Amino acid sequence: MSLPIYVLNGPNLNLLGTREPHIYGHDTLADIEARCVALAKTHGHEIVFRQTNHEGELVTWVQEARLAASALVLNPAAYGHTSVALLDALKNVTVPIIETHLSNPHQREAFRHHTYVSLVATGVVCGFGADSYEVALEAAFRLIKRG
Amino acid sequence: MSLPIYVLNGPNLNLLGTREPHIYGHDTLADIEARCVALAKTHGHEIVFRQTNHEGELVTWVQEARLAASALVLNPAAYGHTSVALLDALKNVTVPIIETHLSNPHQREAFRHHTYVSLVATGVVCGFGADSYEVALEAAFRLIKRG
Amino acid sequence: MSLPIYVLNGPNLNLLGTREPHIYGHDTLADIEARCVALAKTHGHEIVFRQTNHEGELVTWVQEARLAASALVLNPAAYGHTSVALLDALKNVTVPIIETHLSNPHQREAFRHHTYVSLVATGVVCGFGADSYEVALEAAFRLIKRG
Amino acid sequence: MSLPIYVLNGPNLNLLGTREPHIYGHDTLADIEARCVALAKTHGHEIVFRQTNHEGELVTWVQEARLAASALVLNPAAYGHTSVALLDALKNVTVPIIETHLSNPHQREAFRHHTYVSLVATGVVCGFGADSYEVALEAAFRLIKRG
Amino acid sequence: MSLPIYVLNGPNLNLLGTREPHIYGHDTLADIEARCVALAKTHGHEIVFRQTNHEGELVTWVQEARLAASALVLNPAAYGHTSVALLDALKNVTVPIIETHLSNPHQREAFRHHTYVSLVATGVVCGFGADSYEVALEAAFRLIKRG
Amino acid sequence: MSLPIYVLNGPNLNLLGTREPHIYGHDTLADIEARCVALAKTHGHEIVFRQTNHEGELVTWVQEARLAASALVLNPAAYGHTSVALLDALKNVTVPIIETHLSNPHQREAFRHHTYVSLVATGVVCGFGADSYEVALEAAFRLIKRG
Amino acid sequence: MSLPIYVLNGPNLNLLGTREPHIYGHDTLADIEARCVALAKTHGHEIVFRQTNHEGELVTWVQEARLAASALVLNPAAYGHTSVALLDALKNVTVPIIETHLSNPHQREAFRHHTYVSLVATGVVCGFGADSYEVALEAAFRLIKRG
Amino acid sequence: MSLPIYVLNGPNLNLLGTREPHIYGHDTLADIEARCVALAKTHGHEIVFRQTNHEGELVTWVQEARLAASALVLNPAAYGHTSVALLDALKNVTVPIIETHLSNPHQREAFRHHTYVSLVATGVVCGFGADSYEVALEAAFRLIKRG
Amino acid sequence: MSLPIYVLNGPNLNLLGTREPHIYGHDTLADIEARCVALAKTHGHEIVFRQTNHEGELVTWVQEARLAASALVLNPAAYGHTSVALLDALKNVTVPIIETHLSNPHQREAFRHHTYVSLVATGVVCGFGADSYEVALEAAFRLIKRG
Amino acid sequence: MSLPIYVLNGPNLNLLGTREPHIYGHDTLADIEARCVALAKTHGHEIVFRQTNHEGELVTWVQEARLAASALVLNPAAYGHTSVALLDALKNVTVPIIETHLSNPHQREAFRHHTYVSLVATGVVCGFGADSYEVALEAAFRLIKRG
Amino acid sequence: MSLPIYVLNGPNLNLLGTREPHIYGHDTLADIEARCVALAKTHGHEIVFRQTNHEGELVTWVQEARLAASALVLNPAAYGHTSVALLDALKNVTVPIIETHLSNPHQREAFRHHTYVSLVATGVVCGFGADSYEVALEAAFRLIKRG
Amino acid sequence: MSLPIYVLNGPNLNLLGTREPHIYGHDTLADIEARCVALAKTHGHEIVFRQTNHEGELVTWVQEARLAASALVLNPAAYGHTSVALLDALKNVTVPIIETHLSNPHQREAFRHHTYVSLVATGVVCGFGADSYEVALEAAFRLIKRG
Repeated sequence: MSLPIYVLNGPNLNLLGTREPHIYGHDTLADIEARCVALAKTHGHEIVFRQTNHEGELVTWVQEARLAASALVLNPAAYGHTSVALLDALKNVTVPIIETHLSNPHQREAFRHHTYVSLVATGVVCGFGADSYEVALEAAFRLIKRG
Repeated sequence: MSLPIYVLNGPNLNLLGTREPHIYGHDTLADIEARCVALAKTHGHEIVFRQTNHEGELVTWVQEARLAASALVLNPAAYGHTSVALLDALKNVTVPIIETHLSNPHQREAFRHHTYVSLVATGVVCGFGADSYEVALEAAFRLIKRG
Repeated sequence: MSLPIYVLNGPNLNLLGTREPHIYGHDTLADIEARCVALAKTHGHEIVFRQTNHEGELVTWVQEARLAASALVLNPAAYGHTSVALLDALKNVTVPIIETHLSNPHQREAFRHHTYVSLVATGVVCGFGADSYEVALEAAFRLIKRG
Repeated sequence: MSLPIYVLNGPNLNLLGTREPHIYGHDTLADIEARCVALAKTHGHEIVFRQTNHEGELVTWVQEARLAASALVLNPAAYGHTSVALLDALKNVTVPIIETHLSNPHQREAFRHHTYVSLVATGVVCGFGADSYEVALEAAFRLIKRG
Repeated sequence: MSLPIYVLNGPNLNLLGTREPHIYGHDTLADIEARCVALAKTHGHEIVFRQTNHEGELVTWVQEARLAASALVLNPAAYGHTSVALLDALKNVTVPIIETHLSNPHQREAFRHHTYVSLVATGVVCGFGADSYEVALEAAFRLIKRG
Repeated sequence: MSLPIYVLNGPNLNLLGTREPHIYGHDTLADIEARCVALAKTHGHEIVFRQTNHEGELVTWVQEARLAASALVLNPAAYGHTSVALLDALKNVTVPIIETHLSNPHQREAFRHHTYVSLVATGVVCGFGADSYEVALEAAFRLIKRG
Repeated sequence: MSLPIYVLNGPNLNLLGTREPHIYGHDTLADIEARCVALAKTHGHEIVFRQTNHEGELVTWVQEARLAASALVLNPAAYGHTSVALLDALKNVTVPIIETHLSNPHQREAFRHHTYVSLVATGVVCGFGADSYEVALEAAFRLIKRG
Repeated sequence: MSLPIYVLNGPNLNLLGTREPHIYGHDTLADIEARCVALAKTHGHEIVFRQTNHEGELVTWVQEARLAASALVLNPAAYGHTSVALLDALKNVTVPIIETHLSNPHQREAFRHHTYVSLVATGVVCGFGADSYEVALEAAFRLIKRG
Repeated sequence: MSLPIYVLNGPNLNLLGTREPHIYGHDTLADIEARCVALAKTHGHEIVFRQTNHEGELVTWVQEARLAASALVLNPAAYGHTSVALLDALKNVTVPIIETHLSNPHQREAFRHHTYVSLVATGVVCGFGADSYEVALEAAFRLIKRG
Repeated sequence: MSLPIYVLNGPNLNLLGTREPHIYGHDTLADIEARCVALAKTHGHEIVFRQTNHEGELVTWVQEARLAASALVLNPAAYGHTSVALLDALKNVTVPIIETHLSNPHQREAFRHHTYVSLVATGVVCGFGADSYEVALEAAFRLIKRG
Repeated sequence: MSLPIYVLNGPNLNLLGTREPHIYGHDTLADIEARCVALAKTHGHEIVFRQTNHEGELVTWVQEARLAASALVLNPAAYGHTSVALLDALKNVTVPIIETHLSNPHQREAFRHHTYVSLVATGVVCGFGADSYEVALEAAFRLIKRG
Repeated sequence: MSLPIYVLNGPNLNLLGTREPHIYGHDTLADIEARCVALAKTHGHEIVFRQTNHEGELVTWVQEARLAASALVLNPAAYGHTSVALLDALKNVTVPIIETHLSNPHQREAFRHHTYVSLVATGVVCGFGADSYEVALEAAFRLIKRG
């Protein structure tokens, strides 16, 4: 069986569902994880799903995914905009990387228009709220199949 | 039955499959159209699929989509970067807009890092080659279902 | 009798009255045309009133106005911000050019603060909604009278 | 009877008619005042017409206009480009504000392309020489009538 | 007995309490003066409290404070952003300078993010509405006591 | 009794009193904590006082303060300038946030003139050395009282 | 016999000879075409010579030239400065591309100092008035000969 | 006898000799005036010497100098960097204008590197302390003599 | 005997030797440590050699080095470009600081051209691959000897 | 007989043919000189052909060409990007100036996109390798003939 | 007797009097030298007067002046804008440095608004044509006298 | 025996030891040369050591080093910041290039933060005063040994 798909989440995403629900919806990160696991199962994939507020921990997990994952779905949250360390970790990853965001960063503050992650991600999926994760997985399935 | 999903394509996409195949793959725009129609059919949707080299024609089609489509998948190609007219046309569209690109523009020249379309698109899907269209349609199906 | 006054309109203005009426009011472009014709008649002028979504067509019309008009009232809409071709066409026009906008562009997105048209327009009238056209015509009447 | 229309003028406009007549024409500010009063009378309006070289005095007059005027026509001259204090005073004005300039600032030095006044003015009329005032009044009459 | 604390106010602050009360509250500048005087009395200090719309007058008062005050609380309003003359006057002041603002300028337009006053102020207190003055005085009392 | 006031401190503040005493004074962070606790007690408040060198830990503490504090006094130190993650955490906090700095950042290197914290802080107190904390608490007391 | 050389002209060049003759000379575009055809004949080449005001049409012609021309001489006029679509079309062309301008753009407005065409053109010839076309053809002959 | 030479001084120069004497020396403005008058007398010229903290007053004096002076020596101090109104007043002056500064502004803060006055001054003399005035007068004498 | 030399390493350097060996060579961080220890021994120095992915941990180690090291060789990796916290920690270090990089950052992406570390480092050694560490130690030995 | 055509070459062009032949070809500067002389002879012109690594010498040669040449073909190489002295020397030249480069500078590093020479050159020929010189001469012949 | 005053001139000044006489006048550099020598003699000073087109030679002369001159009048011409080497040489000079220009650089192209020389010059005299030299000498005499 | 190591020095370095000794130390360039020769001898290398104030001469020496040196240690001084000609010469050098500076340029004026030399140098050694040369040689020895 193939390696699991890593779904890694950056800072403050642990608050999902409790903050600004009119923007981000009522789904918690646990809800999203459940939906991701379910969707992946229908395609024969397993999911490793984690969240951290620490940049260094996110870097370490990406290093781990480099060897242990068949694809990496990454919602870097704020660290996408500020972390060159995350970029350097991602440069070592050779499996597909799908960057994802709940909202469309181009419609927010100027400092969110650029992410270091985009410089190395295979593709980007953003703006679909909690659905972004599942759409990103759909892309991952296709990328894994093509090898 | 619901309104069709419009898939509109900007300049030079008529050359797809014939140019730089090592980057864009061997799929022609007709191939992509066929795959989009097939995928949409499995979800009970119809597709209106068009391409133009004219900014003004793209503006007019977006105006049409505003009333005649249930969702708009738009690959604006070069006009995404330069056309305020396209932005203004999109501002009148109230159905979901999914911006899509074959490649990840953030990894190309600096003038491709910004699109006017992103300022109003519901979401963005890019970087998955010809698969970007199908992944964008997956997002469209979900957005239509949620209303 | 003198040559007519050309009133040329750029992209998306065909949607006027149907989009964002709380901002742009309920007047359609046909309503505005009727009011312009009526006002011009009281000053003994005729109006040529047109709209297009095509940059190239707007360029061609401006070239035509150069010989066939006594003054040019131009609402370039989005092409005012992006079209150097329009600027070059206007450089050949020697009759008065009055740039006009429904809204005050300086209160909108930064990319609307600059128009190429302003570099050659005799004067600018903006911010008065549909009234902008009639105020622009008042300016045109005075400019024509002074020769 | 309604409140008068304030026509306020910033620094150096007291020299009008005596400086660079090939650019600004031979009209003095007194000539312009006379023409404004005459035009306003035909529409049943009175004019309060003033000029100052002092930024602080212009601020104070705008504060006064806030309560005592039915509309404000403002030629801020140089203070339009540099005075945040003027902007703050104008933010308190709820009657129509028409910014006006004799010349078209977009065709002059770069530091004249931006005015703080434009950020709050209802509309702008510029580039018609001394006629700019009368065209601005035409706009004021229409705005007052619409309420 | 020690010298009084100067509390100097820049342009448009005379309108306080009458403009945008949902933002700035219902306190007038006279109310604030009264509260400052009362608070200062409990610490054994006197207050000199003034407002002007004139940059030159504010410069002159700062020059006066240089010799006549034990501390200077300054709400420069708009002149904080534009007046190098004010900066130069403040450079001559050796007693503590506390810059204060009703709102937090960093959350407003970009041209309000920088003040020349900050380049020489001992400290800054902003964002607490009318309370900013009293908090600034608390800082002044401590600075005077430390000498 | 009301919730405690959180006083959170960012990186390197643990060295206070030992580094550059001619700039920052001889007070250690423990001294400041003691003075804050004493001052708060006279107003009937308790203090939670912490310091960390880890961005992720600061994010987590801010998330905790969101529910457990009546107000947040935050000296973000270097993370104020670089951490979007901290900004996102603060966006979820609805109690008053007072940003504070020992020195006046506007008088230091250009990269210290901007903090992400200022974008969401209720107010800012800076430049008063170790006194900044007590002045910030004075502001906190007033904000809590007003509710 | 080899494929013809395409000489494509952008917006407003149809006015050549009638506008600003002190700058651009008295040659019309038809005159230039005649001289190009004559010069090409002496080198055994045929010329396809066209002009359009439409960006989309220029894109389509460049796509055509990709297969039908032995070399492309392109005077993009204003679209050289604004059209990413033109750039994308040119990227598919593998025969020599010679960008040409009547005047030297570096001596005109700043927005004319950059052309997207230069990013892919084999070489540039500009500043020689109507002679620019013939000098460009001289370059084309040499490039074709070298293969 | 010829018209007098105007020597006009901007804000804060009234403090000369009392502030930062290690930088600006111990000469007061009255000392400088005396030395200017003495030097001018040896060349048969009279001096009108004034200082103001008000931008508007400086503008009015420059307007006066336009008719009443044979040359204008202007130390605009801070208003040189911020006052477009001063620039506009100077544009009406046709006699020689010599801009002068005590210090060399290029060695101070970046916002002092540019003055609006330099855009119209005949020449500049700066960096010689109180001697700058006398060196500027030497230049004025020569310019007046040449007519 | 003197204090040891600290050699501290930032994020992702734990992957050395396994990633992009054509760029960084086949040496692992352990290999480099071994070579550093050996070289130091020949000069009578001991080495403390560490790596971390956490910014906060790097800050803490630098604080430790301030008292426990005779010199600090620091390869900050990505944190050199983004960490003001690291800069602040280094400002407290009075022993020699040698910044080092495997590659020459000036030949990489623009965001790597600046490091906060350079603002306080005694010197910089970069571009010599794994040899950079030994060359940096050569510099450290000389700096320690000079005291 | 007319004056000779000067062909002046800037720094490092003496290495031509020996460096990066896959980019610049195998022609040495002597080869190019020979071809230029031959081509010029067929048009009845003589060539003065020189190269220098010294900016000052290039300036002096341009000063000489001002009087001694019928046209100037200049490949400034690196000095085109950095030498205002060269620009000033060229401003004195009234015969035609043709700037030429082997490669197309717009496709190289950003600091090569601008040359001071372009500000005064009659025209530019670039991108045709060693052929650039001969194409430039073709332009020179035409310009000399037109006078 | 004191050391001579060095008057050093940069590139292209050898052409003075022959180029653009309507701007720079008809004085040659030899004329200016003669007037400088004569003026200096009346103050008991000798002049060393030189010109070069070579940056390196100018650097060497400034190094010489450091020991051999009582003051340095420097017209760096173009090298003032581009030469950091000149700046570094001037940093070693401890006698007064007077930068001078014939024209007022602030009224010319933007790249002439900044000179490296201004960063270290005691003072600047510019805009008085050939008189600039004599006015600069007047300043030098005063500076030498003050020691 | 291998080719010598070239140690080339740019402008003003001939003054070393005589200028600003508190910054650069008391070593003259001759002292440094002696130490370099001695150190090289212990590694079996010879040194060619030169200094010039002329950019063109430095370019010529680099061209020479390309064939005659086993490695190039280059202290470009000011020309590192301004000379594209030097960059172009260095591009032809295939032996190791070690850029070196006495001080750390990142701690000096902004225009010293960038050098063209860094774009092609193998590595950089800076900030160690006169020791920088010897540390740079240590790097050179290692690079030569690795081939």
